[in-house]
Amino acid sequence: MANVRYHLPMHIGMIGLGRMGGNMAQRLARHGIDVTGYSRPPIPVLPDEPRIRIVATLDELIRALPAPRIVWLMVPAGEATEENVEALATRLASGDLVIDGGNAFYRDSQRRAQQLAARGIGFLDAGVSGGVWGLTEGYGMMVGGERAHFERILPLVRALAPAPDRGWVYCGPVGAGHYTKMVHNGIEYGLMQAYAEGFALLAARKDLALPLGEIAEAWRHGTVIRSWLLDLTAGVLREPAALARVGARIADSGEGRWTAREAIDLGVPAPVISAALMTRFASQGADDFGARLLALVRNAFGGHPLPPATAPDPKARPPDR
Amino acid sequence: MANVRYHLPMHIGMIGLGRMGGNMAQRLARHGIDVTGYSRPPIPVLPDEPRIRIVATLDELIRALPAPRIVWLMVPAGEATEENVEALATRLASGDLVIDGGNAFYRDSQRRAQQLAARGIGFLDAGVSGGVWGLTEGYGMMVGGERAHFERILPLVRALAPAPDRGWVYCGPVGAGHYTKMVHNGIEYGLMQAYAEGFALLAARKDLALPLGEIAEAWRHGTVIRSWLLDLTAGVLREPAALARVGARIADSGEGRWTAREAIDLGVPAPVISAALMTRFASQGADDFGARLLALVRNAFGGHPLPPATAPDPKARPPDR
Repeated sequence: MANVRYHLPMHIGMIGLGRMGGNMAQRLARHGIDVTGYSRPPIPVLPDEPRIRIVATLDELIRALPAPRIVWLMVPAGEATEENVEALATRLASGDLVIDGGNAFYRDSQRRAQQLAARGIGFLDAGVSGGVWGLTEGYGMMVGGERAHFERILPLVRALAPAPDRGWVYCGPVGAGHYTKMVHNGIEYGLMQAYAEGFALLAARKDLALPLGEIAEAWRHGTVIRSWLLDLTAGVLREPAALARVGARIADSGEGRWTAREAIDLGVPAPVISAALMTRFASQGADDFGARLLALVRNAFGGHPLPPATAPDPKARPPDR
Repeated sequence: MANVRYHLPMHIGMIGLGRMGGNMAQRLARHGIDVTGYSRPPIPVLPDEPRIRIVATLDELIRALPAPRIVWLMVPAGEATEENVEALATRLASGDLVIDGGNAFYRDSQRRAQQLAARGIGFLDAGVSGGVWGLTEGYGMMVGGERAHFERILPLVRALAPAPDRGWVYCGPVGAGHYTKMVHNGIEYGLMQAYAEGFALLAARKDLALPLGEIAEAWRHGTVIRSWLLDLTAGVLREPAALARVGARIADSGEGRWTAREAIDLGVPAPVISAALMTRFASQGADDFGARLLALVRNAFGGHPLPPATAPDPKARPPDR
């Protein structure tokens, strides 16, 4: 608590109580910060925590907060964020402050900041990393916006971070936080794909019968490639049978595309991040059209046999075949 | 010492006393293992350590060791390894054991194991990771060869590892250790390139004036992309002026090429590792021919102006321009 220096006792609003927002509310509450939460139904059940109160409407949330209000938005990027910012713009008062902790596109955040500023409402874009582990391990945070606004939420940032003085950074003007988080996620695409390719190469050498799980575990200690993502991968490989029970498709959720587009706009080569993104598209079946076209063209010029249309989905083949 | 269970007191030979071998000899000595070291001149100066004795010839090293001998080879892959294995093949006796801790190509290791086995000499291929930090933090190790041979060197492995029970793995038959280390280094190429692209994208947004060093430091804690390589990168970015004092070329030392070739031989896609490798080639100027050719072709069909041959090396431009 020694680090919570501003506006004590603090009481903030949290909109969105899913895997991220719900855990963040709890972490804030455990650090002595009162949280009034609002979430669209179905409202998730949070562990009993006297400092958290959940309300049924946005208006209730706003009435519950002391002015000047602080509202932390933790909802999916896109429509949900847009709707909430619009609703807050007409309900909050001058001097209030909105933090968007979602993975919004940084240009949208810059636009929203202007929209709110026209009404005297402050805005911070806060990239938050840590996933479901954040509740216990803390969250990494990258924040953009006016420095005075940032300083107002510093007690929240210190409470959410892995330690009060670590894992957060004030990145600069509005947009800088979400831009930095976008690049963070782009890097994540590249890192995950590099590990995936490496383990696929290990799995493919059936003659060596390499103990994938033991190798992943050993790599976690002393090697150059040790990382938190490798820790997770080693956990997954402890039960290798799980690989057969999951489809060979990788979703992509926006940041990878934005990062690759940004690389194009800036003329900065990002071959690894782009290749990781394209690999996800391919895994989603987006190269099936091209593959069928090439099969027909190979047949046309060389008489190469056509793969049957009813063949098992080639995406489903394990990497060791 | 409680973990050193076999053949106590142990006394091994270390050939190659460079950044890796010299530090490994010290780490072994600190764990109560006697090391007779041999290195081509100039012989590096190691800190005074009563358990390390340096000799001037390979024959002296072999005479100094108790039979059955254990000789750890820590010399560059390729010619130096080949020469040393050949020299050891004619000098060692049946029952002796050679460990190649270098980054040899795994097929070379398989061949060398056969060559030595014909004389009754054992062989283990041990991939060793950790670089100059290994002395204090310990080394990650991936070992291939006969299990009985591996068990003979287990006290050495436990001493070199970050902790006796962590950071090492017995990978399987001869070649499995160096194959695993090759893939480890291939992954490393992908990881490093992903971070490099991300920081280049941050640096390129001059309008946001992102604090690269602070971002790198913050990312080390709580984020999904935290890793040992990021720790190193944050260290580098603490002095960003260093970027201007270094050439924009990345060397490649073998394992990246082998990993990409292995992906081709196995038909396993490795786009990220391959792109990272190709990026290194490009940074070495290997795409200059193609770039000049394209400049001329663009000029030929579209009259696009030709870049002057005396232009500053485009490789030298900082990522933020």
